[in-house]
Amino acid sequence: MSQLLDPIESVPSYERRRHILDLDDFYRGETEQILNTTDAMKEVMGRDIRKIPTLRGKTIITLFYEPSTRTRVSFEEAGKILSADVINIGLSGSSAAKGESLVNTALTLQAAGADVIVVRHPDAGAPYLIARQLEHASVINAGDGSHAHPTQALLDLYTIRSAFGRIQGLRVVITGDILHSRVARSNLWGLTAMGAQVVVCGPPTLIPMEMSIPHSGSAGPLGHPMSSVTVETSLEKAMYGADVVMVLRLQEERFLSGLIPSLREYSRLYQLDEERLAMAKPNVLVMHPGPMNEGIEISSAVAHGVQSVIQNQVTNGVALRMALLYMLTVSNQDR
Amino acid sequence: MSQLLDPIESVPSYERRRHILDLDDFYRGETEQILNTTDAMKEVMGRDIRKIPTLRGKTIITLFYEPSTRTRVSFEEAGKILSADVINIGLSGSSAAKGESLVNTALTLQAAGADVIVVRHPDAGAPYLIARQLEHASVINAGDGSHAHPTQALLDLYTIRSAFGRIQGLRVVITGDILHSRVARSNLWGLTAMGAQVVVCGPPTLIPMEMSIPHSGSAGPLGHPMSSVTVETSLEKAMYGADVVMVLRLQEERFLSGLIPSLREYSRLYQLDEERLAMAKPNVLVMHPGPMNEGIEISSAVAHGVQSVIQNQVTNGVALRMALLYMLTVSNQDR
Amino acid sequence: MSQLLDPIESVPSYERRRHILDLDDFYRGETEQILNTTDAMKEVMGRDIRKIPTLRGKTIITLFYEPSTRTRVSFEEAGKILSADVINIGLSGSSAAKGESLVNTALTLQAAGADVIVVRHPDAGAPYLIARQLEHASVINAGDGSHAHPTQALLDLYTIRSAFGRIQGLRVVITGDILHSRVARSNLWGLTAMGAQVVVCGPPTLIPMEMSIPHSGSAGPLGHPMSSVTVETSLEKAMYGADVVMVLRLQEERFLSGLIPSLREYSRLYQLDEERLAMAKPNVLVMHPGPMNEGIEISSAVAHGVQSVIQNQVTNGVALRMALLYMLTVSNQDR
Repeated sequence: MSQLLDPIESVPSYERRRHILDLDDFYRGETEQILNTTDAMKEVMGRDIRKIPTLRGKTIITLFYEPSTRTRVSFEEAGKILSADVINIGLSGSSAAKGESLVNTALTLQAAGADVIVVRHPDAGAPYLIARQLEHASVINAGDGSHAHPTQALLDLYTIRSAFGRIQGLRVVITGDILHSRVARSNLWGLTAMGAQVVVCGPPTLIPMEMSIPHSGSAGPLGHPMSSVTVETSLEKAMYGADVVMVLRLQEERFLSGLIPSLREYSRLYQLDEERLAMAKPNVLVMHPGPMNEGIEISSAVAHGVQSVIQNQVTNGVALRMALLYMLTVSNQDR
Repeated sequence: MSQLLDPIESVPSYERRRHILDLDDFYRGETEQILNTTDAMKEVMGRDIRKIPTLRGKTIITLFYEPSTRTRVSFEEAGKILSADVINIGLSGSSAAKGESLVNTALTLQAAGADVIVVRHPDAGAPYLIARQLEHASVINAGDGSHAHPTQALLDLYTIRSAFGRIQGLRVVITGDILHSRVARSNLWGLTAMGAQVVVCGPPTLIPMEMSIPHSGSAGPLGHPMSSVTVETSLEKAMYGADVVMVLRLQEERFLSGLIPSLREYSRLYQLDEERLAMAKPNVLVMHPGPMNEGIEISSAVAHGVQSVIQNQVTNGVALRMALLYMLTVSNQDR
Repeated sequence: MSQLLDPIESVPSYERRRHILDLDDFYRGETEQILNTTDAMKEVMGRDIRKIPTLRGKTIITLFYEPSTRTRVSFEEAGKILSADVINIGLSGSSAAKGESLVNTALTLQAAGADVIVVRHPDAGAPYLIARQLEHASVINAGDGSHAHPTQALLDLYTIRSAFGRIQGLRVVITGDILHSRVARSNLWGLTAMGAQVVVCGPPTLIPMEMSIPHSGSAGPLGHPMSSVTVETSLEKAMYGADVVMVLRLQEERFLSGLIPSLREYSRLYQLDEERLAMAKPNVLVMHPGPMNEGIEISSAVAHGVQSVIQNQVTNGVALRMALLYMLTVSNQDR
């Protein structure tokens, strides 16, 4: 975890909830509150006229140092349903390099009137760096390097809770490139705090070293029983008894860097297909954060099959982000 | 016409009007209804405050796999005047290739709440592919390869009808690179259905082979008399008696690929200048879908002369797209 | 000043105030009126709900031929607070070259409904070229080559007046690459018209030749006493008695083109650090148009120190642009 800053120490606790940086310090009650607010927002999304005046006169700025259509559109749609003004900034590697420092950019956006800055950045820790310097604006981490993607994890929790009515006690398999996945990392914090039994699965080269060593009751920073996380390198074994399977996107770069022998070999061992899916519980949920490499980590039949809630995740993502934008902005007014 | 899908067979007839994919299956009455609705929208555009609440709470997403300032801005302006939320996605060749499949992108946008997806794509048939997979959202083809550009053709029909009060019986010359022009192709469907006499004109290498062969009463799929289309390789002859001349943009690539000997030679034979314009009827309309190569296919004097309605086409384009967005979204509510 | 057009002659005087092209023809009374309107807009920005319906149904188009996050976001935020529809167009060098002429693009945007076109362009004079051709739409120059950046100068004037209650008689130092700075050029017009004593400071290679020659009472086109501008190559001397110091960004290109020997040498002589700042008056304002090269032209301590009003400039920039958009659009209604 080569992150720029230690996420716990970097943000003083008294102002943590002005920002959404990761789920590592979320207590169960707070997460439940977010998911309940998401329920209310989901109802708004189902209306014929999807528009409420809640954030009228507020400004959301998406500041993306990596391209991401999916996450940017989700935040933009969330902000607009709430009647916020949304301004998009996309900075590629080259234009970002020629410009000013990340912190100065954030200060400029705050001075221009941003109430919330949604930031995606290739460097782990970048949203923490910004959050420490802003006096008024809120920061939402929309993905920082291989570190964290808390809004994805929260929408995943919401999707699971919507299907089962609970998260506690469910067997959740996360399969794929665990080592480089900010989605997996944030989900581990969220799922264990909510009482799920998590199985991480993938080739040994794509599992973080510290997870591969047997735990003896070690706990996360808020006392989450990390011993509830187990590692399994056989997808067939992992799937046994699973309530949920989250399939991660395999980046082609992993093959190029020698961490997997070939895409074909990876697919043979780790593609979630109908045969492997049948090893799980009958009502197992199939999830994927997208974008999918169909035919690599997931078969098309499973991706679009009856167990798949992948489209639901997208819809829930908008509702979840509406909930966060609402909660951050309302609490801003109290300060 | 190397298109991915046959446009007629690919979309079941009962849901055709959820989408605007091409004009090949539009009956005259339906087109008239669109043009009448455009009249109403044009009135809105003339107001001091150009804003009506019709599409409040609806989401329009422009999904452009090719850059196009002109068409994107027209749709964005149309959506915003109607109070819709408009979200723009521009995917260049490289970023699109690294992402997910076209269909999965469209499914994601639908799940995020898109009511209408306006798609431009370099591959003919792409909008059909999307339309077949979407259960709720509407698709508008904003240009697919060399295949179709139905909203351009409709705004052209509207512009002609606004000037003459009718389309029936008018002599309309389309001149330039007919072979590669989606604008020409869609206009051929639209103009013949509305009863115009169409003359296509250009160098033999830029006229589709099937048009060069004399017709004997062949008809389009809805019985349009395609025999009303004639081919003329001399622009002077084509212009004789013309009520309308549509000049197409000459892409520099045609020169590079050897289809024309040189830009200078093309201009000498096919540039619409004042001399050639004088061969048409005195009140002839000069049209161009833009962007223009002034000095190549059209002289500056003609482009900005008194016969030119090129700026009107732009204004009408916004009104026409307002009409389509309105009609698609209202009919969505009935389903 | 290799500009395309002479700014004074190119726009007929009777329609000058449909556009904001530069400050060279602004009388003091008109500037005061803009700054007073900015005061009113600043009050709106301080509200909990930053939204007024003033420009509802109006369309602002930002047309940027150079990337600029800062200025584009400022205009976009300004337009949205006023309830205008804002449409962004970013055209890089390559895509702009393949498209249509600048004037035709502007005509198209006007025809599509643009009330105000905010243009940034690498060529001096480009906004003048557009303004001459548009019959209805207003043009705001958001930076044209090395020529002018009038909205930056106006926000700088506003920031100074907010701090001191006046501009008349203040000693304002502008330091850095005067030769290539549109910010410096527009500020010279604005500051001298408002009665400031301006000192331009920088290495001799970065000072325009005509400024280096001693003046003998020469005056600007409106009778501004340009003799109130003095040149100083020593930053220490320039700072003596300064009320305001504006630090300009040093583009790395200046080093590459041989105009300065090295960044280190430049910093040694011209970086505004705490020692040099102490030579000015105790309540001196530190300003920078951004983006800053901290450690080159300004030290981090000064950039973020108690004398710095750099963040205020950003906030004031939104308010100033609100004022201009309002004033141009309201006067449009009178025509």
